[in-house]
Amino acid sequence: MSEECAKIAVIGLGNAGLPLAAVVADSGLMVMGVDINEERCRQINRGENPIPEEAGLEELIKRHGGKRLVATPRFEDARGCSTYIVIVPVFVDAGNNPDFSIMEKALHSLGKILKKGDLVVLETTFPPGTTEGLVQSRLCMSSGLLQSDFYLAYSPERIMTGVSLSRLREFPKVIGGRDEESGIVAYQVYKKFICNLHLVSSAKVAEMIKVMEGCYRDVNIALANELFKICQDLGIDFFEARDNANHQFCHIHLPSTGVGGHCIPVYPWFLIKEMEKREHFSNCRLLSVSREVNDEMIQYWAERILLECMKINKPLFSIKICIKGITYRAGVKEFYHSRNLGLVRLLAGKGLDVYVADPLLTCEEVIGKGLRHIKPEQSDLIFDPFELKFDITGIN
Amino acid sequence: MSEECAKIAVIGLGNAGLPLAAVVADSGLMVMGVDINEERCRQINRGENPIPEEAGLEELIKRHGGKRLVATPRFEDARGCSTYIVIVPVFVDAGNNPDFSIMEKALHSLGKILKKGDLVVLETTFPPGTTEGLVQSRLCMSSGLLQSDFYLAYSPERIMTGVSLSRLREFPKVIGGRDEESGIVAYQVYKKFICNLHLVSSAKVAEMIKVMEGCYRDVNIALANELFKICQDLGIDFFEARDNANHQFCHIHLPSTGVGGHCIPVYPWFLIKEMEKREHFSNCRLLSVSREVNDEMIQYWAERILLECMKINKPLFSIKICIKGITYRAGVKEFYHSRNLGLVRLLAGKGLDVYVADPLLTCEEVIGKGLRHIKPEQSDLIFDPFELKFDITGIN
Repeated sequence: MSEECAKIAVIGLGNAGLPLAAVVADSGLMVMGVDINEERCRQINRGENPIPEEAGLEELIKRHGGKRLVATPRFEDARGCSTYIVIVPVFVDAGNNPDFSIMEKALHSLGKILKKGDLVVLETTFPPGTTEGLVQSRLCMSSGLLQSDFYLAYSPERIMTGVSLSRLREFPKVIGGRDEESGIVAYQVYKKFICNLHLVSSAKVAEMIKVMEGCYRDVNIALANELFKICQDLGIDFFEARDNANHQFCHIHLPSTGVGGHCIPVYPWFLIKEMEKREHFSNCRLLSVSREVNDEMIQYWAERILLECMKINKPLFSIKICIKGITYRAGVKEFYHSRNLGLVRLLAGKGLDVYVADPLLTCEEVIGKGLRHIKPEQSDLIFDPFELKFDITGIN
Repeated sequence: MSEECAKIAVIGLGNAGLPLAAVVADSGLMVMGVDINEERCRQINRGENPIPEEAGLEELIKRHGGKRLVATPRFEDARGCSTYIVIVPVFVDAGNNPDFSIMEKALHSLGKILKKGDLVVLETTFPPGTTEGLVQSRLCMSSGLLQSDFYLAYSPERIMTGVSLSRLREFPKVIGGRDEESGIVAYQVYKKFICNLHLVSSAKVAEMIKVMEGCYRDVNIALANELFKICQDLGIDFFEARDNANHQFCHIHLPSTGVGGHCIPVYPWFLIKEMEKREHFSNCRLLSVSREVNDEMIQYWAERILLECMKINKPLFSIKICIKGITYRAGVKEFYHSRNLGLVRLLAGKGLDVYVADPLLTCEEVIGKGLRHIKPEQSDLIFDPFELKFDITGIN
C-alpha cells in the first residue's frame, strides 16, 4: 500500500461511526464520511455536531467538519480513498437471527468503488466468521476483484454513547486480519489514530472478543436480576449485600427491568444461533437462559406493580399506573428492544390503567407510540424503571 | 459484656478455623481452640503447624501454640470464654440439600457451656437465615437459655487456603447480628483482631453476601466454560480472545474441567434448594444451569480425549490414557466433588484403559481410591486437567 492510505473513508456516520471519523480527522488524516442521511451530512459539513450527548464531539466537528472531515451521501465521492472503514448496523430479526440487510447494501455499494490494493476494515459487531465469510464474498462479488486483490480486517468498535471519544483515545482496541498481511497493513493504518491498539491473530478472534464482552455483560446482568429476585424472596436488601460482596475478585452487576438497546441483548444471539445451526444446543445453555431471565424481568416487575396496588384504597381497575421512562436506558432516547416499553405494553395487555411519563418525550411523542401520557403526580402509582422504585402519590 | 470477652473460643480448627485462631492470638488475645481431632490439638499445643501450605501460619503457631492459643478436644475447657466463634463445615448431601449434622453436633456441645451474656459468632458459609433460624434454636434448646440471654452474630470466613492470613489481615470482612445489639457487640469484639471490618444490617445479609460471591464465581466459570466450547467449535483460540476481551469492565474467568471443592459448587445449592422449597423455580434458573454446565464439563473433556485418540495408531481399547491430576484443584490434596476424579471414573465407566498420575499422590494412594496408577511417560495419551492440555507420548 502506498502513502495514499492516509485518505480514509468511514462508511456510516452514526453514533459509532461519527466519533471514529472525528478522531481520525483529528489525528491529521483526511476523512471522507459516507452516510445515507443527507441532512446529517450537510450538518457535519457545516461543522455542526448531530450527537449532542457525545462529550467533546462538538469541538471536533466544529474544527474538522467540511474541512478534514467531509461527509457525503454518495459512495462515488469516496473513490479516492484507499482505506474503507465500515461501521453500519447489524441487528437481529424477529427470530433473533442476524439481519445483514443494511450491511449487505453498504458492501454492495463499497464494492463498486473498491480498487486493487485497498484496505477494508469492518467495525460493526457481528458473528465470528462474518468478515472472512459474508463480507469478503459480497465485496468480491460486487467489485469483481479476487480476495487477494484487497486487504480485509476487523476491529470492533468499543464505544459507548457519551464517552466514545475517551474510549477511542484510551481504551484498548483490537484489530485482526483475514490473513496475516491484512492484519499488519490494517494495524499500521489504525496505529495512526488509535494509541492503545492490539493486533490479534485473525479477524475471527477480533469478532469473538467483542461478542464475548457482550455475553459477559448479559449473563452478569441476568445473574444480578436472579440474585435480586432471590433477595426479595428472602427479605434481604440486595443492594446492601451487593455493596459488601463486591471487591477486586467479585463484580456483581445491577438489577434492572432487563436489557435493551442494540448491543448487549443482541450479541448473545450471534453465538446462540450459530450453535443452533450446528445442532450444538448444549453449548449455549447459559447464554440462552440469561437472555430469557433478562427478557422475563418485565413479568417480575408487572407482578411487583400489581402487588404494590394493594396499598391503594381503590378498585384495581381504576388505579392509574404511571411508568416513568420507556427508553431502553436512562438519558438515551432510543427504544430498540426497550424492556420499559415492553413493560407498559404488558400491563396494558392485562387491562390495567397504565400511562407513561418520560422526561425525554413530549406528550405527543408518547401518544405517537400508541400509549397514553400522564403527569406523574396525576397518577396513583408511579414506577421508575431506572431506579426500580415505587411511589404512591398523594392523590389517594 | 464485661472485659472477659477478651477470652475467645474458636470451635473448629480446620483450614479456616486455625488461621483465624492464630490471627486472634497474634492480636494479643487469649484463644481456646476446640477441635475433635486430638492429634491436631496436640500438634498445635506443641507449636507445630498442621497446614504447611498456609503461608505465614507456621510462624504464628510456633509463637502462640500452647501459649496464647491452646487447643483442646473438649468443649468444657472453653467454659471460661465469653466469645465463641463457630467455624465447622456444612456440606450438601447427595440430593444437594445442606447437611448440618456436624454443625448441629457442635452447637449442641456449645449450648452445654453457653452462659448468659456470651457472644456466639458463626463463620461457616450457609443458607441465608440459618443463624437466626437453626443456629439460634439449637443453641437455645441445648443451653436452656432464652434467645435474649446471649448475643448472636454471623461473619463469613473469606479465606483461601494458602493466603488465609493475608485475607484475614487485609481483605474486607463483614459481620452482622441477629439483632442490632448483637451486631454492635460482635463488631466490637472482632474489631480487636480484624482491621478491615464492616458491620452490616443483619446476620442474614452477611450470610447472603458470602453465598452471592460463590454464585458469582460459579456462574462466571460456567460462562467461561461455555464460551470455551463455543470457541472450540468456531476454531477460535479462547485464551487469545479472553486476554483481549478482559479489561476493567469485563472479567471473563478461566475454563476448566468444572468446579470442585467445598465452596463454589456448594453455595449455589443453598439458594437453589431454598427457592425450590418455596416453589419459586424460576428464581434460580441461571444458578441451576450454571451448576449443570460446570458439572457436565467432564463429559465434554471425555469426548475431547476420545477424539485425541484418533491421532494414535493403535486400537482404541488398547490406548493407555493418563489423567494427570485427580485433586479438585492443582496443589491442594482434596477430593471433595473433584471433577478430575469424576472424569477418570467416567472414562473407566466407558471401558477405556484409563490411569492416574498425580504429583500429590503416591501409587498406593491412587490404588487406594480404586484407580490404577501409571507413570505418565508409560501411557499413550496424557491429559492434564489443570492446564487443559493433551500430550501424546513418544512410545507410539
